[in-house]
Amino acid sequence: MTFMQSLAAAWQKNDSLLCVGLDPDPAKFPAHLKGRADAIFAFCQAIVDNTADLVCCFKPQIAYFAAHRAEDQLEALITHIHARHPGIPVILDAKRGDIGSTAEQYAREAFERFKADAITVNPYMGRDSVEPYLAWRDKGVILLCRTSNPGGSDLQFLDVGGEKLFERVARLVAGEWNTTGQCALVVGATFPAEIARVRQLTGALPLLVPGIGAQGGDIEATVQAGKTPDGTGLMLNSSRAILYAGQDETFAAAARQAARETRDAINRYR
Amino acid sequence: MTFMQSLAAAWQKNDSLLCVGLDPDPAKFPAHLKGRADAIFAFCQAIVDNTADLVCCFKPQIAYFAAHRAEDQLEALITHIHARHPGIPVILDAKRGDIGSTAEQYAREAFERFKADAITVNPYMGRDSVEPYLAWRDKGVILLCRTSNPGGSDLQFLDVGGEKLFERVARLVAGEWNTTGQCALVVGATFPAEIARVRQLTGALPLLVPGIGAQGGDIEATVQAGKTPDGTGLMLNSSRAILYAGQDETFAAAARQAARETRDAINRYR
Repeated sequence: MTFMQSLAAAWQKNDSLLCVGLDPDPAKFPAHLKGRADAIFAFCQAIVDNTADLVCCFKPQIAYFAAHRAEDQLEALITHIHARHPGIPVILDAKRGDIGSTAEQYAREAFERFKADAITVNPYMGRDSVEPYLAWRDKGVILLCRTSNPGGSDLQFLDVGGEKLFERVARLVAGEWNTTGQCALVVGATFPAEIARVRQLTGALPLLVPGIGAQGGDIEATVQAGKTPDGTGLMLNSSRAILYAGQDETFAAAARQAARETRDAINRYR
Repeated sequence: MTFMQSLAAAWQKNDSLLCVGLDPDPAKFPAHLKGRADAIFAFCQAIVDNTADLVCCFKPQIAYFAAHRAEDQLEALITHIHARHPGIPVILDAKRGDIGSTAEQYAREAFERFKADAITVNPYMGRDSVEPYLAWRDKGVILLCRTSNPGGSDLQFLDVGGEKLFERVARLVAGEWNTTGQCALVVGATFPAEIARVRQLTGALPLLVPGIGAQGGDIEATVQAGKTPDGTGLMLNSSRAILYAGQDETFAAAARQAARETRDAINRYR
C-alpha cells in the first residue's frame, strides 16, 4: 500500500485524525527508564504500543534520535511499528531540503534505511529538490507550507504578488509539484484562518498540522478549518502533551488516556 | 577560536578560498577501497590529508553518510580533521530547519556529537528556528540564500515588495539575525550577478558558494562578484570535481592536483 492509501485506511479503521509525534527527550523520561542503553526505543515502543489503535500515523522527529547517537533505536522503532501495527504509516519528520543528488541520499536515508512511509521536506530550494523523494512512488512527501513557530511569519508571510509566500507554496505543491498524488502539506494549528485558506487552495490534499498540544492550537477551530467534506484530510499532531502526560511507571497508560481524549476531542468537530 | 576566526586564519595561512566538499559516494570509489567496512572514512581521510594545506575549510555533506548508516565514520572523520589539521574549520552541510526545541537537538547533533565548527541552515521557518544554533557562540551558522540548483528560482526568485526573496533573506540575515557575528550565507556560483547583489547587501559577510566544480559555475565571474575588498569573504566549494578527479589508487594525488589547480585559478582573480 502507498502512504496515501495507508493513511486513508487508518483514518477509517481507527476513526482518528490524530498523529502522535515521537520526540523522545531522555531528560523527561520516567526514572525507571533512565540509564537504560535502549531507553529511547523502550520509551517510544511503550508509547506506540499503547496508542496505535488511536492514531492515523506516527511521526518520529529524527533530531531527537540523532542528538543522542540513536539512529539504531529509530530503525528498531520503525521496524517495530511496521511489524506490530501494520497499516499505521510512519512519517519521518526530517524537514530535509537539498539539491537533487543530495536529496537522493536523503531519500535513501528515509525510505531505504529507516523504512519510513513519508518524509517532511522544506520547499525553499524548489521543485527539483523535491523530485528525488517523489521517485519513490509508494512514499509520501509532506512539504512545509505554514509553520507553527513565531518566526514562521518572517518569510512565509511575505507578500508575493498579491498572496503570501505560504499560499504560493500551497498552490505550487497542489497545482504543479503533486503530479503523482504523493504530496501533503505542513500547516501549523496556531493559525486556523490560514489552515482554511490552504484547504481552499489545495482541494483534498492531506494536511499535517503540528501545534494542537503543547504549542497551544485550538482543536475545534483547527478541525473546522482543515477537514475535507468527508471529515478527514488531516493529520493533527500532538507530541509532548501525549508523550509526557505521565511522569512515572504509568506513563504509557497516561499517554494512552491523553491520546484517547485528544482523538475524541478532534472527533467531536469532524 | 571561533569558526569565523578559524576561517579568517585559514584564508591567510593556506592562501585559499577553496572549500572541499566531502560528498562520499561509494559507487564512485576506486576499486581498492570497495568492500572495506570503513571505506567512506578511508576515502575522505585520504582526500583530507592530501588537500588540507590547500583549503580554507572542509564541508562534509551529512546525507552521504546517513544514507549509508555511516554516522560513526563522519564522527571519526571530523575528529581526524581537528586532530591532524588543526585550524581548518569543518562545516556540516545539513541544511536543517525546524522549530526551536527541535533545532536545539539538531544543534547538539552538529556541534556536540559531530563537533562541527559550523552548520548550514534553511531560513524558511524564520529567526527563532535559527537562534538555537547561534546559542553556540563559537560556531558558524550558514543560511541558505540563493541556491545553485535549477529549482532554486521557484521560491527564491519571487518578488517580495520590490526585491527578490533571496535578497530579503540576505538583508534579514545581515541586518537582523546576525547580531553575534556568527552568520554566513549560501549563494550558488551559477549566478554571479546574484552573488554581486548579495555582496552589496551584506558587507563583508562570508559567502559559501557551491557550484564551481561539477555544477559548472565560472570561477572568474564568481570571485569578482563575491570577494571582499581584501580578497577574501568567500568559501568556494568544489566536491565531485576534486573527490573523483582520479579513479584508481592515485585518486588522492589526483584530488590534490585538482584542488591545487582550483585554488590557484581562484587566486588569479582575487
